[in-house]
Amino acid sequence: MSLENILLKIEYDGSDFAGWQRQPNHPTIQGCIEDILREFCGRKVVLYGASRTDSGVHARGQMANFEIEPKMPPERWAPFLNSALPRSIRILKSSKVPPRFHAQKMAQSKLYEYRIMQRSCPSALDKTIEIHPAPLDWEAIRKAMPYFVGQHDFKAFQGARSTVLTTIRTVYRFELFEEEKGVFRFEIEGNGFLKQMVRAIIGTLLEVGQGKRKPEEIPDIIASRDRSRAGHTAEPRGLCLVRVNYPPLN
Amino acid sequence: MSLENILLKIEYDGSDFAGWQRQPNHPTIQGCIEDILREFCGRKVVLYGASRTDSGVHARGQMANFEIEPKMPPERWAPFLNSALPRSIRILKSSKVPPRFHAQKMAQSKLYEYRIMQRSCPSALDKTIEIHPAPLDWEAIRKAMPYFVGQHDFKAFQGARSTVLTTIRTVYRFELFEEEKGVFRFEIEGNGFLKQMVRAIIGTLLEVGQGKRKPEEIPDIIASRDRSRAGHTAEPRGLCLVRVNYPPLN
Repeated sequence: MSLENILLKIEYDGSDFAGWQRQPNHPTIQGCIEDILREFCGRKVVLYGASRTDSGVHARGQMANFEIEPKMPPERWAPFLNSALPRSIRILKSSKVPPRFHAQKMAQSKLYEYRIMQRSCPSALDKTIEIHPAPLDWEAIRKAMPYFVGQHDFKAFQGARSTVLTTIRTVYRFELFEEEKGVFRFEIEGNGFLKQMVRAIIGTLLEVGQGKRKPEEIPDIIASRDRSRAGHTAEPRGLCLVRVNYPPLN
Repeated sequence: MSLENILLKIEYDGSDFAGWQRQPNHPTIQGCIEDILREFCGRKVVLYGASRTDSGVHARGQMANFEIEPKMPPERWAPFLNSALPRSIRILKSSKVPPRFHAQKMAQSKLYEYRIMQRSCPSALDKTIEIHPAPLDWEAIRKAMPYFVGQHDFKAFQGARSTVLTTIRTVYRFELFEEEKGVFRFEIEGNGFLKQMVRAIIGTLLEVGQGKRKPEEIPDIIASRDRSRAGHTAEPRGLCLVRVNYPPLN
Protein backbone atom coordinates (compact mmCIF):
# COMPACT_ATOMS: atom_id res chain seq x y z
CA MET A 1 0.00 0.00 0.00
CA SER A 2 1.44 3.38 -0.95
CA LEU A 3 1.92 5.98 1.75
CA GLU A 4 0.16 9.33 1.94
CA ASN A 5 2.03 12.53 2.83
CA ILE A 6 0.06 14.41 5.51
CA LEU A 7 0.73 18.04 6.44
CA LEU A 8 -0.26 19.35 9.88
CA LYS A 9 -0.75 22.91 11.07
CA ILE A 10 0.07 22.94 14.77
CA GLU A 11 -0.50 25.34 17.67
CA TYR A 12 1.23 24.89 21.01
CA ASP A 13 1.98 26.50 24.32
CA GLY A 14 5.66 25.62 24.62
CA SER A 15 5.90 26.51 28.35
CA ASP A 16 6.07 22.91 29.51
CA PHE A 17 8.05 21.42 26.61
CA ALA A 18 11.75 21.11 25.90
CA GLY A 19 11.10 22.53 22.42
CA TRP A 20 9.93 21.03 19.15
CA GLN A 21 12.63 18.46 18.51
CA ARG A 22 12.41 14.95 19.91
CA GLN A 23 14.73 14.31 22.86
CA PRO A 24 15.21 11.36 25.15
CA ASN A 25 13.68 11.87 28.63
CA HIS A 26 12.18 15.31 27.91
CA PRO A 27 8.68 16.10 26.66
CA THR A 28 8.81 17.72 23.20
CA ILE A 29 6.10 18.55 20.70
CA GLN A 30 7.56 16.35 17.97
CA GLY A 31 7.91 13.53 20.49
CA CYS A 32 4.28 13.80 21.67
CA ILE A 33 2.87 13.63 18.15
CA GLU A 34 5.26 10.91 16.92
CA ASP A 35 4.45 8.74 19.94
CA ILE A 36 0.74 8.78 19.10
CA LEU A 37 1.42 7.94 15.45
CA ARG A 38 3.75 5.11 16.45
CA GLU A 39 1.19 3.70 18.87
CA PHE A 40 -1.49 3.87 16.18
CA CYS A 41 0.59 2.42 13.31
CA GLY A 42 2.74 -0.05 15.18
CA ARG A 43 5.88 1.40 13.58
CA LYS A 44 8.03 4.49 13.91
CA VAL A 45 6.64 7.47 11.95
CA VAL A 46 8.91 10.50 11.50
CA LEU A 47 7.41 13.98 11.70
CA TYR A 48 9.30 16.70 9.78
CA GLY A 49 8.74 20.11 11.38
CA ALA A 50 9.29 23.41 9.56
CA SER A 51 11.00 25.00 12.54
CA ARG A 52 12.87 23.53 15.50
CA THR A 53 11.44 25.93 18.05
CA ASP A 54 13.46 26.15 21.29
CA SER A 55 12.40 25.09 24.73
CA GLY A 56 9.60 27.36 25.96
CA VAL A 57 8.83 28.87 22.55
CA HIS A 58 5.22 28.76 21.31
CA ALA A 59 3.59 28.30 17.92
CA ARG A 60 0.34 29.35 16.32
CA GLY A 61 1.26 27.96 12.91
CA GLN A 62 4.04 25.36 13.07
CA MET A 63 3.90 23.06 10.02
CA ALA A 64 4.99 19.43 9.93
CA ASN A 65 4.52 16.47 7.60
CA PHE A 66 4.67 12.69 7.90
CA GLU A 67 4.19 9.75 5.56
CA ILE A 68 1.65 7.15 6.60
CA GLU A 69 -0.68 4.43 5.37
CA PRO A 70 -4.04 5.97 4.27
CA LYS A 71 -5.82 4.87 7.43
CA MET A 72 -8.38 7.69 7.43
CA PRO A 73 -9.44 10.66 5.28
CA PRO A 74 -6.60 13.28 5.48
CA GLU A 75 -8.69 15.86 7.34
CA ARG A 76 -9.47 13.33 10.11
CA TRP A 77 -5.86 13.19 11.36
CA ALA A 78 -6.38 16.54 13.14
CA PRO A 79 -9.26 15.49 15.42
CA PHE A 80 -7.75 12.02 15.85
CA LEU A 81 -4.44 13.45 17.12
CA ASN A 82 -6.20 16.11 19.23
CA SER A 83 -8.13 13.41 21.07
CA ALA A 84 -4.83 11.94 22.31
CA LEU A 85 -2.63 15.05 22.65
CA PRO A 86 -2.32 17.22 25.77
CA ARG A 87 -4.45 20.35 25.68
CA SER A 88 -1.35 22.51 25.18
CA ILE A 89 -0.85 21.05 21.67
CA ARG A 90 -3.63 21.45 19.11
CA ILE A 91 -3.62 20.28 15.50
CA LEU A 92 -5.49 23.05 13.67
CA LYS A 93 -5.59 21.31 10.31
CA SER A 94 -4.47 18.16 8.49
CA SER A 95 -4.37 17.78 4.73
CA LYS A 96 -2.85 15.58 2.05
CA VAL A 97 0.15 17.05 0.20
CA PRO A 98 2.16 15.80 -2.79
CA PRO A 99 4.61 12.95 -2.09
CA ARG A 100 7.75 15.11 -2.25
CA PHE A 101 6.47 17.91 -0.02
CA HIS A 102 8.78 18.49 2.96
CA ALA A 103 7.62 20.96 5.64
CA GLN A 104 11.14 22.09 6.54
CA LYS A 105 13.02 22.01 3.23
CA MET A 106 10.26 23.67 1.22
CA ALA A 107 9.51 26.53 3.62
CA GLN A 108 9.99 29.85 1.79
CA SER A 109 9.60 32.19 4.73
CA LYS A 110 8.57 32.28 8.37
CA LEU A 111 6.83 34.83 10.53
CA TYR A 112 7.61 35.07 14.24
CA GLU A 113 6.16 37.38 16.84
CA TYR A 114 7.65 38.43 20.17
CA ARG A 115 5.35 39.99 22.77
CA ILE A 116 6.39 42.08 25.77
CA MET A 117 4.28 43.55 28.53
CA GLN A 118 5.69 46.50 30.42
CA ARG A 119 4.92 45.68 34.05
CA SER A 120 6.46 44.16 37.13
CA CYS A 121 4.62 40.85 37.57
CA PRO A 122 3.99 38.03 35.08
CA SER A 123 0.54 37.80 33.53
CA ALA A 124 -2.00 35.53 35.23
CA LEU A 125 -3.93 35.26 31.97
CA ASP A 126 -1.28 34.85 29.29
CA LYS A 127 1.73 32.54 29.59
CA THR A 128 2.95 33.48 26.11
CA ILE A 129 4.14 36.99 26.83
CA GLU A 130 7.39 38.28 28.32
CA ILE A 131 7.37 41.00 30.95
CA HIS A 132 9.73 43.92 31.37
CA PRO A 133 9.46 45.78 34.69
CA ALA A 134 11.22 49.05 33.76
CA PRO A 135 9.98 51.48 31.10
CA LEU A 136 11.74 51.10 27.75
CA ASP A 137 12.60 53.75 25.18
CA TRP A 138 10.38 52.43 22.40
CA GLU A 139 11.37 55.23 20.02
CA ALA A 140 15.02 54.15 20.22
CA ILE A 141 13.91 50.55 19.60
CA ARG A 142 11.94 51.64 16.54
CA LYS A 143 15.00 53.44 15.21
CA ALA A 144 17.18 50.34 15.60
CA MET A 145 14.80 47.89 13.91
CA PRO A 146 15.30 48.83 10.21
CA TYR A 147 19.00 47.91 10.42
CA PHE A 148 17.98 44.25 10.67
CA VAL A 149 15.88 44.28 7.49
CA GLY A 150 17.45 42.94 4.29
CA GLN A 151 20.10 40.33 3.55
CA HIS A 152 22.80 40.14 6.19
CA ASP A 153 25.26 37.73 7.70
CA PHE A 154 23.58 37.23 11.08
CA LYS A 155 26.43 35.25 12.67
CA ALA A 156 26.53 37.77 15.57
CA PHE A 157 22.97 36.71 16.42
CA GLN A 158 23.43 32.94 16.26
CA GLY A 159 23.28 30.75 19.37
CA ALA A 160 26.12 28.42 20.29
CA ARG A 161 26.56 24.91 18.86
CA SER A 162 24.88 25.52 15.54
CA THR A 163 25.94 23.59 12.45
CA VAL A 164 24.40 25.50 9.55
CA LEU A 165 26.39 25.96 6.31
CA THR A 166 25.73 29.67 5.95
CA THR A 167 24.74 32.36 8.43
CA ILE A 168 23.35 34.66 5.74
CA ARG A 169 19.63 35.26 6.04
CA THR A 170 17.14 37.77 4.66
CA VAL A 171 14.69 39.61 6.89
CA TYR A 172 11.78 40.81 4.76
CA ARG A 173 9.85 42.73 7.38
CA PHE A 174 10.32 43.80 11.00
CA GLU A 175 7.50 45.73 12.65
CA LEU A 176 6.44 46.81 16.12
CA PHE A 177 2.83 47.20 17.24
CA GLU A 178 1.37 48.41 20.53
CA GLU A 179 -1.55 46.01 21.01
CA GLU A 180 -2.87 47.89 24.01
CA LYS A 181 -1.32 50.26 26.51
CA GLY A 182 1.96 48.71 27.67
CA VAL A 183 1.65 45.57 25.50
CA PHE A 184 4.03 45.45 22.54
CA ARG A 185 4.33 42.95 19.71
CA PHE A 186 7.27 42.56 17.34
CA GLU A 187 6.63 40.83 14.01
CA ILE A 188 9.64 39.57 12.09
CA GLU A 189 9.42 37.77 8.77
CA GLY A 190 12.34 36.28 6.89
CA ASN A 191 13.45 33.48 4.60
CA GLY A 192 14.83 31.66 7.62
CA PHE A 193 16.27 32.28 11.06
CA LEU A 194 19.43 30.99 12.72
CA LYS A 195 19.31 29.24 16.07
CA GLN A 196 18.06 31.74 18.69
CA MET A 197 18.42 34.55 16.14
CA VAL A 198 15.06 36.20 16.86
CA ARG A 199 15.67 36.08 20.60
CA ALA A 200 19.19 37.56 20.20
CA ILE A 201 17.79 40.38 18.05
CA ILE A 202 15.05 41.09 20.62
CA GLY A 203 17.55 40.92 23.49
CA THR A 204 19.75 43.46 21.69
CA LEU A 205 16.76 45.74 21.06
CA LEU A 206 15.78 45.56 24.73
CA GLU A 207 19.28 46.82 25.59
CA VAL A 208 18.73 49.67 23.11
CA GLY A 209 15.44 50.38 24.89
CA GLN A 210 17.27 50.49 28.22
CA GLY A 211 19.76 53.01 26.85
CA LYS A 212 22.67 50.55 27.08
CA ARG A 213 23.25 50.71 23.32
CA LYS A 214 22.48 53.23 20.61
CA PRO A 215 20.38 52.36 17.54
CA GLU A 216 23.28 53.41 15.31
CA GLU A 217 25.49 50.66 16.76
CA ILE A 218 23.46 47.88 15.13
CA PRO A 219 25.25 47.88 11.72
CA ASP A 220 28.63 47.47 13.44
CA ILE A 221 27.30 44.65 15.61
CA ILE A 222 25.96 42.83 12.54
CA ALA A 223 29.23 43.41 10.64
CA SER A 224 31.30 42.06 13.53
CA ARG A 225 29.87 38.52 13.10
CA ASP A 226 30.72 38.21 16.81
CA ARG A 227 28.01 36.87 19.15
CA SER A 228 29.62 38.60 22.13
CA ARG A 229 29.03 42.00 20.52
CA ALA A 230 25.24 41.55 20.33
CA GLY A 231 22.85 41.62 23.29
CA HIS A 232 21.54 38.84 25.51
CA THR A 233 19.20 36.13 24.27
CA ALA A 234 15.66 37.23 25.24
CA GLU A 235 13.52 34.77 27.19
CA PRO A 236 11.69 32.17 25.07
CA ARG A 237 8.34 32.92 26.75
CA GLY A 238 7.52 35.86 24.47
CA LEU A 239 8.35 34.13 21.18
CA CYS A 240 5.78 32.48 18.91
CA LEU A 241 6.07 30.97 15.42
CA VAL A 242 3.04 32.46 13.69
CA ARG A 243 3.21 31.26 10.09
CA VAL A 244 5.29 29.26 7.63
CA ASN A 245 4.89 30.11 3.95
CA TYR A 246 5.29 27.62 1.09
CA PRO A 247 5.24 27.95 -2.67
CA PRO A 248 1.89 26.98 -4.25
CA LEU A 249 1.61 23.19 -3.94
CA ASN A 250 0.21 22.53 -7.41
CA MET B 1 -3.63 51.21 66.29
CA SER B 2 -6.00 52.48 63.61
CA LEU B 3 -6.56 50.34 60.54
CA GLU B 4 -5.68 51.28 56.98
CA ASN B 5 -8.06 50.66 54.09
CA ILE B 6 -6.15 48.99 51.25
CA LEU B 7 -7.50 48.69 47.70
CA LEU B 8 -6.23 45.95 45.38
CA LYS B 9 -6.41 45.68 41.60
CA ILE B 10 -6.47 41.98 40.79
CA GLU B 11 -5.97 39.89 37.65
CA TYR B 12 -6.86 36.20 37.55
CA ASP B 13 -7.32 33.21 35.31
CA GLY B 14 -10.55 31.84 36.78
CA SER B 15 -10.27 28.44 35.03
CA ASP B 16 -9.31 26.54 38.17
CA PHE B 17 -11.38 28.49 40.70
CA ALA B 18 -14.97 28.19 41.92
CA GLY B 19 -15.41 31.92 41.33
CA TRP B 20 -14.52 35.00 43.37
CA GLN B 21 -16.56 34.41 46.49
CA ARG B 22 -15.21 32.42 49.43
CA GLN B 23 -16.69 28.93 49.70
CA PRO B 24 -15.98 26.04 52.00
CA ASN B 25 -14.01 23.23 50.32
CA HIS B 26 -13.57 24.98 46.96
CA PRO B 27 -10.68 27.19 45.85
CA THR B 28 -11.85 30.75 45.25
CA ILE B 29 -9.98 33.97 44.56
CA GLN B 30 -11.34 35.74 47.64
CA GLY B 31 -10.49 32.69 49.72
CA CYS B 32 -6.87 32.52 48.48
CA ILE B 33 -6.17 36.17 49.27
CA GLU B 34 -8.01 36.18 52.62
CA ASP B 35 -6.11 33.07 53.72
CA ILE B 36 -2.77 34.79 53.18
CA LEU B 37 -3.92 37.91 55.07
CA ARG B 38 -5.23 35.79 57.93
CA GLU B 39 -1.98 33.86 58.15
CA PHE B 40 -0.01 37.11 58.18
CA CYS B 41 -2.19 39.00 60.69
CA GLY B 42 -3.25 36.18 62.96
CA ARG B 43 -6.90 37.22 62.62
CA LYS B 44 -9.64 37.02 60.02
CA VAL B 45 -9.44 39.83 57.43
CA VAL B 46 -12.43 40.33 55.11
CA LEU B 47 -11.82 41.22 51.48
CA TYR B 48 -14.66 43.15 49.78
CA GLY B 49 -14.67 42.46 46.02
CA ALA B 50 -16.36 44.74 43.47
CA SER B 51 -17.80 41.85 41.54
CA ARG B 52 -18.63 38.26 42.52
CA THR B 53 -17.37 36.69 39.31
CA ASP B 54 -18.73 33.18 38.65
CA SER B 55 -16.79 29.96 38.58
CA GLY B 56 -14.46 29.95 35.56
CA VAL B 57 -14.76 33.69 34.87
CA HIS B 58 -11.54 35.73 34.59
CA ALA B 59 -10.54 39.26 35.58
CA ARG B 60 -8.02 41.78 34.37
CA GLY B 61 -9.20 44.49 36.73
CA GLN B 62 -11.16 43.13 39.69
CA MET B 63 -11.06 45.57 42.61
CA ALA B 64 -11.22 44.63 46.30
CA ASN B 65 -10.49 46.33 49.61
CA PHE B 66 -9.63 45.23 53.15
CA GLU B 67 -8.91 46.95 56.44
CA ILE B 68 -5.65 46.07 58.13
CA GLU B 69 -3.00 47.25 60.57
CA PRO B 70 -0.41 49.43 58.76
CA LYS B 71 2.17 46.65 58.64
CA MET B 72 3.90 47.87 55.46
CA PRO B 73 3.74 50.77 52.99
CA PRO B 74 0.45 50.42 51.03
CA GLU B 75 2.15 49.71 47.67
CA ARG B 76 4.05 46.76 49.22
CA TRP B 77 0.91 44.67 49.74
CA ALA B 78 0.91 43.80 46.01
CA PRO B 79 4.37 42.14 45.85
CA PHE B 80 3.85 40.64 49.31
CA LEU B 81 0.61 38.92 48.29
CA ASN B 82 2.04 37.91 44.88
CA SER B 83 4.89 36.09 46.60
CA ALA B 84 2.36 33.80 48.28
CA LEU B 85 -0.43 33.57 45.69
CA PRO B 86 -0.66 30.98 42.90
CA ARG B 87 0.59 32.23 39.55
CA SER B 88 -2.99 32.39 38.22
CA ILE B 89 -3.80 35.29 40.60
CA ARG B 90 -1.75 38.50 40.35
CA ILE B 91 -2.17 41.67 42.40
CA LEU B 92 -1.44 44.43 39.89
CA LYS B 93 -1.56 47.28 42.38
CA SER B 94 -2.20 48.06 46.04
CA SER B 95 -2.93 51.51 47.40
CA LYS B 96 -4.35 53.24 50.45
CA VAL B 97 -7.91 54.54 50.12
CA PRO B 98 -10.10 56.63 52.47
CA PRO B 99 -11.60 54.76 55.49
CA ARG B 100 -15.13 54.60 54.08
CA PHE B 101 -14.18 53.38 50.60
CA HIS B 102 -15.94 50.10 49.73
CA ALA B 103 -14.93 48.37 46.47
CA GLN B 104 -18.37 46.89 45.85
CA LYS B 105 -20.77 49.53 47.14
CA MET B 106 -18.95 52.46 45.56
CA ALA B 107 -18.49 50.97 42.08
CA GLN B 108 -20.11 53.26 39.51
CA SER B 109 -19.75 51.05 36.45
CA LYS B 110 -18.09 47.88 35.24
CA LEU B 111 -16.66 46.78 31.93
CA TYR B 112 -16.73 43.13 30.90
CA GLU B 113 -15.43 41.52 27.75
CA TYR B 114 -16.45 38.21 26.21
CA ARG B 115 -14.16 36.64 23.61
CA ILE B 116 -15.08 33.99 21.06
CA MET B 117 -12.91 32.19 18.55
CA GLN B 118 -14.62 30.68 15.55
CA ARG B 119 -12.98 27.27 15.22
CA SER B 120 -13.46 23.65 16.18
CA CYS B 121 -10.82 23.00 18.84
CA PRO B 122 -10.00 24.92 22.02
CA SER B 123 -6.97 27.20 21.97
CA ALA B 124 -3.67 25.75 23.18
CA LEU B 125 -2.41 29.25 23.91
CA ASP B 126 -5.33 31.04 25.49
CA LYS B 127 -7.55 29.55 28.20
CA THR B 128 -9.62 32.73 28.45
CA ILE B 129 -11.48 32.47 25.17
CA GLU B 130 -14.60 30.53 24.20
CA ILE B 131 -14.74 28.60 20.94
CA HIS B 132 -17.63 28.24 18.53
CA PRO B 133 -17.20 25.55 15.87
CA ALA B 134 -19.85 26.66 13.36
CA PRO B 135 -19.79 29.99 11.49
CA LEU B 136 -22.00 32.66 13.05
CA ASP B 137 -23.98 35.42 11.38
CA TRP B 138 -22.08 38.33 12.91
CA GLU B 139 -24.17 40.91 11.05
CA ALA B 140 -27.32 39.60 12.73
CA ILE B 141 -25.51 39.71 16.08
CA ARG B 142 -24.49 43.33 15.44
CA LYS B 143 -28.12 44.20 14.67
CA ALA B 144 -29.33 42.67 17.94
CA MET B 145 -26.80 44.35 20.23
CA PRO B 146 -28.20 47.91 20.40
CA TYR B 147 -31.46 46.61 21.94
CA PHE B 148 -29.55 45.87 25.14
CA VAL B 149 -28.17 49.41 25.52
CA GLY B 150 -29.95 51.77 27.90
CA GLN B 151 -31.95 51.29 31.10
CA HIS B 152 -33.97 48.07 31.12
CA ASP B 153 -35.42 45.55 33.50
CA PHE B 154 -33.04 42.66 32.76
CA LYS B 155 -34.93 40.02 34.79
CA ALA B 156 -35.11 37.78 31.67
CA PHE B 157 -31.30 37.63 31.77
CA GLN B 158 -30.84 36.89 35.46
CA GLY B 159 -29.55 33.53 36.70
CA ALA B 160 -31.51 31.48 39.24
CA ARG B 161 -31.32 32.01 43.02
CA SER B 162 -30.51 35.69 42.95
CA THR B 163 -31.64 37.95 45.78
CA VAL B 164 -31.22 41.48 44.41
CA LEU B 165 -33.82 44.15 45.21
CA THR B 166 -34.19 45.42 41.68
CA THR B 167 -33.45 43.87 38.30
CA ILE B 168 -33.22 47.23 36.52
CA ARG B 169 -29.77 47.98 35.17
CA THR B 170 -28.30 50.43 32.66
CA VAL B 171 -26.00 49.30 29.86
CA TYR B 172 -23.94 52.28 28.70
CA ARG B 173 -22.07 50.68 25.84
CA PHE B 174 -22.08 47.35 24.00
CA GLU B 175 -19.58 46.89 21.19
CA LEU B 176 -18.17 44.08 19.08
CA PHE B 177 -14.61 44.00 17.73
CA GLU B 178 -12.90 41.50 15.44
CA GLU B 179 -9.43 41.26 17.04
CA GLU B 180 -8.08 39.15 14.21
CA LYS B 181 -9.65 36.88 11.61
CA GLY B 182 -12.14 34.63 13.43
CA VAL B 183 -11.49 36.12 16.91
CA PHE B 184 -14.30 38.31 18.25
CA ARG B 185 -14.52 40.42 21.40
CA PHE B 186 -17.67 41.86 22.93
CA GLU B 187 -17.28 44.80 25.32
CA ILE B 188 -20.20 45.63 27.58
CA GLU B 189 -20.19 48.44 30.11
CA GLY B 190 -22.95 49.20 32.56
CA ASN B 191 -23.74 50.50 36.03
CA GLY B 192 -24.04 46.93 37.25
CA PHE B 193 -24.88 43.45 36.05
CA LEU B 194 -27.24 40.83 37.46
CA LYS B 195 -26.05 37.32 38.22
CA GLN B 196 -24.97 35.67 34.94
CA MET B 197 -26.51 38.57 33.00
CA VAL B 198 -23.59 39.05 30.60
CA ARG B 199 -23.42 35.33 29.87
CA ALA B 200 -27.19 35.16 29.26
CA ILE B 201 -26.98 38.11 26.85
CA ILE B 202 -24.04 36.52 25.00
CA GLY B 203 -25.85 33.14 24.91
CA THR B 204 -28.90 34.83 23.39
CA LEU B 205 -26.75 36.64 20.82
CA LEU B 206 -25.06 33.36 19.86
CA GLU B 207 -28.53 31.96 19.11
CA VAL B 208 -29.19 35.02 16.95
CA GLY B 209 -25.91 34.31 15.18
CA GLN B 210 -27.01 30.72 14.58
CA GLY B 211 -30.27 31.92 13.03
CA LYS B 212 -32.39 30.48 15.85
CA ARG B 213 -33.69 33.93 16.80
CA LYS B 214 -34.11 37.19 14.95
CA PRO B 215 -32.48 40.44 16.16
CA GLU B 216 -35.94 42.06 16.30
CA GLU B 217 -37.08 39.58 18.96
CA ILE B 218 -34.77 41.05 21.61
CA PRO B 219 -37.13 43.83 22.84
CA ASP B 220 -39.91 41.28 23.46
CA ILE B 221 -37.55 38.97 25.29
CA ILE B 222 -36.40 41.83 27.55
CA ALA B 223 -40.01 42.95 28.14
CA SER B 224 -41.10 39.41 29.09
CA ARG B 225 -38.94 39.44 32.26
CA ASP B 226 -38.96 35.66 31.77
CA ARG B 227 -35.60 33.84 31.90
CA SER B 228 -36.98 30.97 29.81
CA ARG B 229 -37.57 33.34 26.88
CA ALA B 230 -33.91 34.37 26.61
CA GLY B 231 -31.09 32.17 25.32
CA HIS B 232 -28.74 29.84 27.14
CA THR B 233 -26.07 31.01 29.56
CA ALA B 234 -22.80 31.20 27.59
CA GLU B 235 -19.78 29.36 29.00
CA PRO B 236 -17.81 31.28 31.65
CA ARG B 237 -14.50 30.66 29.86
CA GLY B 238 -14.87 33.63 27.50
CA LEU B 239 -15.87 36.19 30.14
CA CYS B 240 -13.47 38.64 31.79
CA LEU B 241 -14.02 41.55 34.18
CA VAL B 242 -11.86 44.25 32.62
CA ARG B 243 -12.41 47.36 34.73
CA VAL B 244 -14.38 48.77 37.65
CA ASN B 245 -14.92 52.51 37.71
CA TYR B 246 -15.23 54.63 40.87
CA PRO B 247 -15.99 58.28 41.53
CA PRO B 248 -12.87 60.38 42.21
CA LEU B 249 -11.63 59.39 45.67
CA ASN B 250 -10.79 62.88 46.91
